Amino acid sequence: MNDMHAFASQVFASQPFSQFIGAELVASSSDSAELALTVQDHHKQQHGFVHGGVLSYLADNAITFAGGLALGGNALTAEFKINYLRPAIGSRLVALAQARSAGKRMAICQCEIYALDGESRKLCALAQGTVVPAA
Amino acid sequence: MNDMHAFASQVFASQPFSQFIGAELVASSSDSAELALTVQDHHKQQHGFVHGGVLSYLADNAITFAGGLALGGNALTAEFKINYLRPAIGSRLVALAQARSAGKRMAICQCEIYALDGESRKLCALAQGTVVPAA
Amino acid sequence: MNDMHAFASQVFASQPFSQFIGAELVASSSDSAELALTVQDHHKQQHGFVHGGVLSYLADNAITFAGGLALGGNALTAEFKINYLRPAIGSRLVALAQARSAGKRMAICQCEIYALDGESRKLCALAQGTVVPAA
Amino acid sequence: MNDMHAFASQVFASQPFSQFIGAELVASSSDSAELALTVQDHHKQQHGFVHGGVLSYLADNAITFAGGLALGGNALTAEFKINYLRPAIGSRLVALAQARSAGKRMAICQCEIYALDGESRKLCALAQGTVVPAA
Repeated sequence: MNDMHAFASQVFASQPFSQFIGAELVASSSDSAELALTVQDHHKQQHGFVHGGVLSYLADNAITFAGGLALGGNALTAEFKINYLRPAIGSRLVALAQARSAGKRMAICQCEIYALDGESRKLCALAQGTVVPAA
Repeated sequence: MNDMHAFASQVFASQPFSQFIGAELVASSSDSAELALTVQDHHKQQHGFVHGGVLSYLADNAITFAGGLALGGNALTAEFKINYLRPAIGSRLVALAQARSAGKRMAICQCEIYALDGESRKLCALAQGTVVPAA
Repeated sequence: MNDMHAFASQVFASQPFSQFIGAELVASSSDSAELALTVQDHHKQQHGFVHGGVLSYLADNAITFAGGLALGGNALTAEFKINYLRPAIGSRLVALAQARSAGKRMAICQCEIYALDGESRKLCALAQGTVVPAA
Repeated sequence: MNDMHAFASQVFASQPFSQFIGAELVASSSDSAELALTVQDHHKQQHGFVHGGVLSYLADNAITFAGGLALGGNALTAEFKINYLRPAIGSRLVALAQARSAGKRMAICQCEIYALDGESRKLCALAQGTVVPAA
């Protein structure tokens, strides 16, 4: 487990886009991953909310890690779907992804994204997708 | 039409995340939008391909603009789905989104994302989603 | 609540396709719905598993009812996505849908579909979708 | 090609649910499939439109056949997403699915569903999904 978290952390650290956007892999287990991001102005869209593209990045990547951990190695998100539930307003976002099933050739994961604002924690997006082993 | 493109360009320019990630709104019509992005190293994942989160941002935002133009004003992507077809390798990405239907309360859009590499142009992602008027 | 369940049951009973396919609305709450179906040979595909179209009907309709109950009236599924996790084998299927958020113009729901076989109960599909008030 | 259409027709004919619901495989190519269904009262929901579950069955199955033909053999829809664009009203439905990419382990397909009513032909649903070879 510690080895898998170390492996996941190393993969995460080697993703230039995750560094650029400022995301963190804050936790993982044998079938789940938690990403977080401290919201900055450059993450926003024209109305001052976090841009959907930031949320979709978090969903995509949290799903990749949850699925990869469940599959046991390097993996890719093959597809996912996201619904935005409310405007993402807050100082920090947390994305929790969980593999709901995993076989030899794919894992199916769900992801919840919360916006934290002071003591409030609101669900702002739900995603679901497929992860496959890297070829 | 010119007015709508000017409006769309102004909205796009006011999206901090679109500026941060380096995207451009290169064309639009009454029901479509084309975004592009010159690939830089910080857009990549651990294997050297463009990160799925960059593609999902392009899909989300191209769909927002195509749907907003079809609906005639400020709009939000409510949900979308994306399939990654092949690794996105190249110097530039182009996302073409088109509204396939538009009513009073929503527009349904599809988006194709191409990776350009020298003279090659490969379809690397397909997306489909729903756009609603901004409240 | 009783009134809402009576309303939901009445709507369900007035769906010819639900009668034709043999589904039942077995439970509901203010934001959830449970559908069930006793598997018969005519529900199957070429390998002897329940056809994906039966599962997608259950997901679509369970989501409609969960969302409609959360929205408080007649409603339609605007879109949904389904992942099939394993072949649906068993004597009975149960679809549990829950609204995860509901506003004035839409509810977002998730749905789990289980196959029951003797004492075994296996998750065989996950779905997520959007419900809107009937115009 | 003829062989593949014969193979697809044989698989289709061996799907009890497709027979039960009354669908037909009307055409196929090396990467596409067309299904059709003559609308009967038992296909409808409470407002008199074709039930979403019928449309989702058509999308699921047209995608399976388009993807299976592109992959060259027995195949399963692993996941798909559908957006309903307008109420499906008419005497006949036609679902056209096309593989947009196909590799060794999956094909990605899109599907358009039209409702035919007299001389009118209206797009009423769009779907997109993933097909994998049968294990």
